Amino acid sequence: MNRPQSVEKMTQIIKKLPGIGPKMAERISYHILKMPQSEVNRLIDSINSGRQKMKYCRICFNLNESDPCPICSDNTREKNILCVVETPQDLIAVSKVKEYNGLYFVLGGALSPLDAIGPDDIKISQLIERLKNDKIGEVIIATDTDSKGETTALYLAQTIKPLGIKVSRLGYGLPVGGDIEYADEITISRAIAGRKEM
Amino acid sequence: MNRPQSVEKMTQIIKKLPGIGPKMAERISYHILKMPQSEVNRLIDSINSGRQKMKYCRICFNLNESDPCPICSDNTREKNILCVVETPQDLIAVSKVKEYNGLYFVLGGALSPLDAIGPDDIKISQLIERLKNDKIGEVIIATDTDSKGETTALYLAQTIKPLGIKVSRLGYGLPVGGDIEYADEITISRAIAGRKEM
Repeated sequence: MNRPQSVEKMTQIIKKLPGIGPKMAERISYHILKMPQSEVNRLIDSINSGRQKMKYCRICFNLNESDPCPICSDNTREKNILCVVETPQDLIAVSKVKEYNGLYFVLGGALSPLDAIGPDDIKISQLIERLKNDKIGEVIIATDTDSKGETTALYLAQTIKPLGIKVSRLGYGLPVGGDIEYADEITISRAIAGRKEM
Repeated sequence: MNRPQSVEKMTQIIKKLPGIGPKMAERISYHILKMPQSEVNRLIDSINSGRQKMKYCRICFNLNESDPCPICSDNTREKNILCVVETPQDLIAVSKVKEYNGLYFVLGGALSPLDAIGPDDIKISQLIERLKNDKIGEVIIATDTDSKGETTALYLAQTIKPLGIKVSRLGYGLPVGGDIEYADEITISRAIAGRKEM
C-alpha cells in the first residue's frame, strides 16, 4: 500500500519548509490529519493573521508589526552607526546586546553565487542609498560566519569603504561557555589571532 | 527587541508539531511569513483537503482515503491472519513486504503508563471484538520495539492467547545493511538468541 494521495500532497508541501526532511514531513502530515479541528484552525489562523499583520520596515527592512519599526522610530538611538544583518531573526539576536545602541539594516539574505543570488537579489542598493542619505559614520557587518555570510561581508566592505564610511566585522573567536575541545580548528586559529592581553 | 507577537504566536503553535523545537519553529514561522501567497494557499489547501478526504477504515482503523480501506476490501488477501501495528505509517511500512498477504489492524498508538495511555485510549477492545467475530487464526504483533511498543505487545499477547489464537511478534535482530560495530548490545544479544543455522 502506498501513502494516500492527500498525505503525499501534504508531505510534498511540508517538506519544503526549512529543516524538514521527507520522513519528518510525513510524520507532521499524519499529525495534522489527526489533530482536533480547533487546533488546525488555530494553526491556520496564526499563519493568516501573521501574514496580514507583519510588514517590512521601509527604513531597515526588518520584518515586524509596524512601519517604521520600533527601532527606527526610537529617537534615543545613535543615528550614525548601522549594524547590517541577514535576517530579522539576526536583528533580534544582536538587539539583545545592551552595548549596541545604533540602528540596523536587514539585507534579507546573503550573496550566494552557487545559488545565483547576487547583489540585486538582496537589499544592497537600498543599503548604499541609505548610507549616502543618512550620514552613517560606521557600519558593523554582522552577517553569518558561513561562506555566504563571508562573501557578503567582503562585498559590502569593498562597496562601502569607498564612500568614506568606517566598516567593521563582528570579531571571531570561541563562543562563550564553549568547550575548546569541541571547537573546530578554524575557530581556534581565529581566536588565537584575535587574542587579548590580560 | 523581542520577537513580534505574530511570530511568537505562530512559533508557539508550530513547535507543538512532532519533532519541531522552538528554534526551528521560529525559522519556519519567518519562512511562512515570507512565502508567496500562492504557496501559503497550497499549504493551507493541502491541510484542509487532506483532513476532508482522509477517514478511518471502520474495519482496521487505517487512516486513508476510503472506508473500508483498499486492504480490507481486497478479496485476494488471507483473511485469517492479522498484523497489528501502532500507526497508519507502520501499516504502509509492513505492506511493502511482499511475503505478508494478510490483513491489518491499526491500534492508533501504544500503551504508555507514564503518559496515562491505557487500553481504553487505543483500539484494543475493537481489536478483541474483531478477533472474536472474524475467525482470525494468527496475530502478528508489529508494534515498535521501544518500551511502549513492548508493553503493548506483552499486553496484547496476554489478552489474545486465551482466545485460542496464535500470537507472534516480529523477530529481533540486526537491521539489514547495518554495521555490527554500531549496533547496541541489546540488539546484538537478541540477534544471537535469534541466530539461524546456515
